[in-house]
This record gives sequence, structure tokens and C-alpha cells, in this order.
Amino acid sequence: MEKAMLRKYAEMAVRIGINVQPGQTLVIRSPLNGAELARECADVAYDAGAKEVVVFYHDEKLNRIRMEKGSKEEMCNIKEWQKIQMLNYVNTEGSAAFLHILSEDPEIYKGLDTEKIDAIGKANSAATKEFRDYTMNSRVQWSIVAIPSEAWAKKVFPELPVEAAVEKLWDTIFKVSRVEGDAVANWKEYTDKQMARRNRLNSLNLREVHLTSKNGTDLHVGLAEDCIWGGGKDYTTGGKPFTKEGIEFIANMPTEEIFTAPHKDNVNGVVYGTKPYVFNGNLIEDFVVTFKDGKVVEYDARVGKDLLKQLLESDEGAVSIGEIALVPASSPINRQNVLFYNTLFDENAACHIAFGAAYPDCVKGGSEMDEDQLKAKGINISVIHEDVMVGSEDMDIVGITADGEKVQIFSDGEWVF
Amino acid sequence: MEKAMLRKYAEMAVRIGINVQPGQTLVIRSPLNGAELARECADVAYDAGAKEVVVFYHDEKLNRIRMEKGSKEEMCNIKEWQKIQMLNYVNTEGSAAFLHILSEDPEIYKGLDTEKIDAIGKANSAATKEFRDYTMNSRVQWSIVAIPSEAWAKKVFPELPVEAAVEKLWDTIFKVSRVEGDAVANWKEYTDKQMARRNRLNSLNLREVHLTSKNGTDLHVGLAEDCIWGGGKDYTTGGKPFTKEGIEFIANMPTEEIFTAPHKDNVNGVVYGTKPYVFNGNLIEDFVVTFKDGKVVEYDARVGKDLLKQLLESDEGAVSIGEIALVPASSPINRQNVLFYNTLFDENAACHIAFGAAYPDCVKGGSEMDEDQLKAKGINISVIHEDVMVGSEDMDIVGITADGEKVQIFSDGEWVF
Repeated sequence: MEKAMLRKYAEMAVRIGINVQPGQTLVIRSPLNGAELARECADVAYDAGAKEVVVFYHDEKLNRIRMEKGSKEEMCNIKEWQKIQMLNYVNTEGSAAFLHILSEDPEIYKGLDTEKIDAIGKANSAATKEFRDYTMNSRVQWSIVAIPSEAWAKKVFPELPVEAAVEKLWDTIFKVSRVEGDAVANWKEYTDKQMARRNRLNSLNLREVHLTSKNGTDLHVGLAEDCIWGGGKDYTTGGKPFTKEGIEFIANMPTEEIFTAPHKDNVNGVVYGTKPYVFNGNLIEDFVVTFKDGKVVEYDARVGKDLLKQLLESDEGAVSIGEIALVPASSPINRQNVLFYNTLFDENAACHIAFGAAYPDCVKGGSEMDEDQLKAKGINISVIHEDVMVGSEDMDIVGITADGEKVQIFSDGEWVF
Repeated sequence: MEKAMLRKYAEMAVRIGINVQPGQTLVIRSPLNGAELARECADVAYDAGAKEVVVFYHDEKLNRIRMEKGSKEEMCNIKEWQKIQMLNYVNTEGSAAFLHILSEDPEIYKGLDTEKIDAIGKANSAATKEFRDYTMNSRVQWSIVAIPSEAWAKKVFPELPVEAAVEKLWDTIFKVSRVEGDAVANWKEYTDKQMARRNRLNSLNLREVHLTSKNGTDLHVGLAEDCIWGGGKDYTTGGKPFTKEGIEFIANMPTEEIFTAPHKDNVNGVVYGTKPYVFNGNLIEDFVVTFKDGKVVEYDARVGKDLLKQLLESDEGAVSIGEIALVPASSPINRQNVLFYNTLFDENAACHIAFGAAYPDCVKGGSEMDEDQLKAKGINISVIHEDVMVGSEDMDIVGITADGEKVQIFSDGEWVF
């Protein structure tokens, strides 16, 4: 991996993803193999006027030893410093922004006691709930970028020796993240286009999108009441004493989707999967699903039908969908024709739907609604949210407005505006 | 570096250095390049019955960027979590033990604003004062072990390519740390011997040691009143609600010295330096110093006389000595004939004296005395504590007891008991 490319990737993460503000603190959470990127990000952030950059390193190989051999009781006994650490950075003048460097080995805890891992995870979640309100509701800028780990690279490119696989995964990430050339300019140009599309969709007041493809897909996706299309850029919502509203950021990088919430009871037709989907570490391929009144009534898959069954039986809401996301066939991730085994990338390869929960903020005022109010809008509730790719090279998408007017949105797999 | 040797080094650090107790937590502070050792230490600690192992990583390359570009004001504004983090591990049932993995680049902050670095260091020190009372007064077990960094290895073996230098420094550290063979058994046998020597010295009730060598050294070192010889093993002092008294540990590894406090006004004669000494990153070589009534009255050096002058002029107490430490010529560190540029190793190569401060706990009840009381016992006070090597292959040391009896301690550079 070229140092110059890493610098551009850091520029992208800090100047576009986080959009660090002068006088702000940047908090980075990084695995040990992210140290080089974390240092570059620190340097970029200071150059952009950050007053401080703090990096917290974690070591998943150590965590495996801890999970295997440590006392569950002690690990669930969260210390006071852990509860306040992140809060200390938001409860202060010019509230910090948060960058997460992702490089997980998806199989790091393989073979360990899942009940113990879950319990410890829950104890940590409960202890940091107050802080997570800041990122989950975008009160502050936050972003996630990924870097190769050896285990991940070997999973994506099993035919290559480990070092070559890591190199190739770096190259692929740089390509699909629009880092080549002037990364910051690329992203400005690209997100401006995405914002225009998103604004256009929002102005149309659509009640349905209709997806068709020569592969047999013919799906009417009714939309939740008062739904809002998201994607492109994010904006901080503020709402706390030290947070600011309206700062641009991009939470996931890369991102190719413009998305909203379907109406959970108003999805009808048939849809074909167009990319392999990784569920619990295993593949579902070439599935076909039929919806009636929002629910899956028939399904099949060439590979992993059992897995698909398991997925759809996760809970009551798992047979309905919580997201419809539009991604053109020209998405750089699609053009790489690589399965990343990582949703941050794979969901940006094609139009997709998600079985399970919808995002409450995909309807107006949804962040403040309770479950019954959300359901009344058509928002689906579930413990799962599994994105499956259904977009194709010839996908045609027509929007139907509240007035019944038809508007072409995608033609031959691409945006028409 | 062989994995099996690293495992032995971890066994040494955790079972001997820390002597982790069943049900205890081990807190490890490690640089990023210490991850492999930290994981081994975690594994060893769990096998020894530790309930939890926590590792905090630091990144000195990142810290250089922070020190160079960060806001001094913000970095001096220590957060609440930083103040309580370590305290959380001692203010709890079975108070934790603390292992520090050392691997510093001595020149990491070269060229930066020293005033800023000092200010930030002081702010951090002040914020963690309550915790440092636990380690500085050995209320809990703590230990330091070193691992090579590239910068350090190149300084020790400048003639080798960097990878070979790191390998050679690993090998050298393993050798001088008695890790070859059965590390734990080696250390048990060795520290038993050292404790016997220490106990013997303490039983003699010495008022002076007299060092002579064919190189011209003829130094009478009067000892502080009620002085105690230390070395070999350390024992926790407890004294807080959750700490225990009397747990064996070894704070510095390796350690070859048995040491005590001289009487600041009662050192007379001449002493020749026998090893190069690194002061502020530069060398003092072949020095000779004459003492009268505890103070340096004449000095010279073949190399670095100016540095020696600077050292002796640090403050009023710098011309007197605060430590006399006995190390035999057969010390494995001496036999390697390597200058480590690191006091953890270099001071264990030969008998040494230290210009500057004495350790209060080298006299009975000293930890509870004020400065005037300490001075009355002969304890030297100074801001510096600089260990200079004066031991030789033919060193002869005779102790003089309170009754005026002479007892042979060293003959031809070796312990006689």
C-alpha cells in the first residue's frame, strides 16, 4: 500500500467523512493494524484545525484470549472510567467527532462460548448507552472507514498469498472509495450529485417505487407514510448542550445508496437476488422471494435455502422489509465484481432491500415516535436488518407519486437524473 | 525472535515479576510493538488464575504528532476518565497488579518544544498522583520489562541492519534476563541467592563499605543511619483498603544489584568509572572523581567532561551520592559487554554509585519521614539520580561494621557469600 494513497484515504475520512471543525477534538477508535492510518488521520485533522486527536487502540487477538479465559462476571462489571470515557469528549466545548477504523476478522471468536460473548457485549452496550445516543442519532459527526486485516483479505481473495491479498484489498478499497486522483474533490463532486438525486426524490412525494428487470423481478414497493429519502451527505442533529446542528458528514464510506423506508404492509410481487449474500458467515445465492401485502409468502434459493429460512424466521418482522436502497449498476463497488463479506461494501454494489427493521428517521419525526406510532406509518420492526442485493444491469425503476403520476427513476440500471 | 522464548519471557514477567495472584486483575501498559508479548502475558496470567487482564496500548509515533501539533491547553486539560482509570483497578476487591512493557525510542520527541512536553507531562503526573502512590510505594505488585524497538536496537547495534539489530537485541535481552532454560526456576534460584546476600548484609549492621581496585579506585562509602539493603525480591507494602501486604514481586527485570543509601556527608576517596555512561543521550567515559566529606571535590573524564560538569551542577545535592549498589563482574549483563543506552539494563552491569537522590525507604521508616528527618539520617536529596558504573573485574569490597569489624564482601569482582 502506497503511503501517498493512505494519506488520501486519511484526507477522505477526516475532511469528508468526519468534516472535522476548527477547534474540535477528533476521537479515533482503531485496531492495532490501523495505527498507520490513525496517525495519518491525526495529522490531517490537526492540519484542518483540530485542537486534539485521541486514538484508542483495541486488539481483537487479545480480546479473543480475554473472551476465552477471563471471568465473565468481572468482564460484565464495567468500570466507571469506561462509562464516562467517551462522554468526556462530548460533554465539553465543541463536542468531539468520532472516527471508527474497521478491520475485523469475522471469525475472531469462532468456537468460543457465544452466551458469554453476548453477555459481555450487552454489559458494555448498557454502560455506554448514554454516549451511543450521540452517534446513533447523529448528534455529532461520526464515520466508519475500513482497512484490510490479513484474515479479511484472505477471505476476499483466497487464491492469493496473504501479503498479496492484503495489497489487493487495499487497492480495491482505494478504488471503490474514490480515493484515486483528488479524493476530497472526487467526494465533493460525487456527494453533490447524490444530494441532487436525494432532493429530487424527496420533492416527488412518492408513494411507491416499482422495480423490474429481465431476470424476472417485478416488485412494487409501497413506501412508509411521510417517508424521507436519505443518502449522500449526513447532517448533525445536535440537541445537546455542546453539540452543533447542521454540520455535514458522511457516516459510512464508501456509500453509493439513496434509501428510504418501505411500507411494511404494502410490498407486492417477486424479486430475484443478484449477488451472493453473506448471512452468519455463510452464503445465500440466487434467491427468489414473493411478497404479498408486505410479507414473504414464497421463497427459494439455489444455495442456502435453509439459511434464508432461518433469516426469515428470526422474528415476526423478518418476513417484511425495512429498507429500499437505490444503487446504480455503475457503482464502483459493483464494477470491481468482488464479494467483500462486509456490509459496508457489499450493500453498495447494487440496489437492495433489507429484511427486518427500518430506520425510524426515514419518516418525518420518526426519531421521536414510539413503536406504535412508527408502525402506523408503515415502519417495520424487527431485531434483524439484513441487506440483500436485487439490483441488475438492466434494472428499471419507476416512481409513483401521491397523485398517481409515474416518474422514471432508473433506466438500464442507472439513474435517469 | 522465537515464539517459545517470548512465552518464557512472559512467564518470567507475570509469574516472577508480577507474581499475579489467583482472582487478581493484571493491568498491562504496552506500546503497539509489545502486542505479541502483552497477549502472551495475558495468557500466562489467566493460566495463573487472574480473573481479568486489561491492556492499554500507547503509540509513541502518534504521541509525537500530538506533541507537535496538538493544543497545549487542551492536552493539559486532563479528562475525568484519565484521572480515575487506574484507580478503578486498585479501589476494588483484590487490587490489580501493573506490568509496564518498555520499548521507547529515546529520541522520539527530538526537536520538539520541550517546554510544551514538560507542561503536558506535569499535567498528567498531577492528575494521576493518587494512583502513583500505589506503585511508587509498592502498595501493589508492579514490574517493568523491556522489548526492542527498531530505534533502540539500532542505537545498541548500529553496525547491523535494522531487522538483525532487533533480533540481536531480543537475544541479548533473553540472555541477560535468565530466560534460557526454565525461566521461572532460574529466577527462583537466583532470587533466593540474592535474598540470602541481602539478608546477610542487613544482619552485619555495616556503617561503611570500602571499594578498591587495581584501576586506582579507593573509595570509603559511609552508609546512612539505620540503612536497609534492598534488592533481590520486593514485597508489597499494602496500606490501602483493597491492597495486601507481603506479596513477593520484582519491580525491575533484569535486576542484579543489592543496594542501599550512602551517608551524604561521609564518602571519601577516589573512584574510577568503568563503563560508558549515557547522560541526556550523550556519553561520559573514563571519568575519575574524588570525594571529601561526601562531596565531589575533583573530577575529570576522557570523554564528556563538560557533561559530567553539567550533571554535577544539576543542584546542590548532585555532588553527593544517593546509592551504592553491588553487582558482581559475572552479571550476565556485564558478560554481554553491550551498552544498552537504558538504565534498566546498564545499571545491572557493574557495581555503581548514583549521583543525586537516595531512596527514602533505604532507611528504616524512611517512607514516613520528612526531608529534614531524612537528611539527619544522611539521606541525600536532589532532583537527579544518575547511576554511574564503577565496578571492575578485580573489585574488592570490605564492609566495616558498627563495631569496627571488617567483613569481606566482594573479592576479585565477585560476592564472597
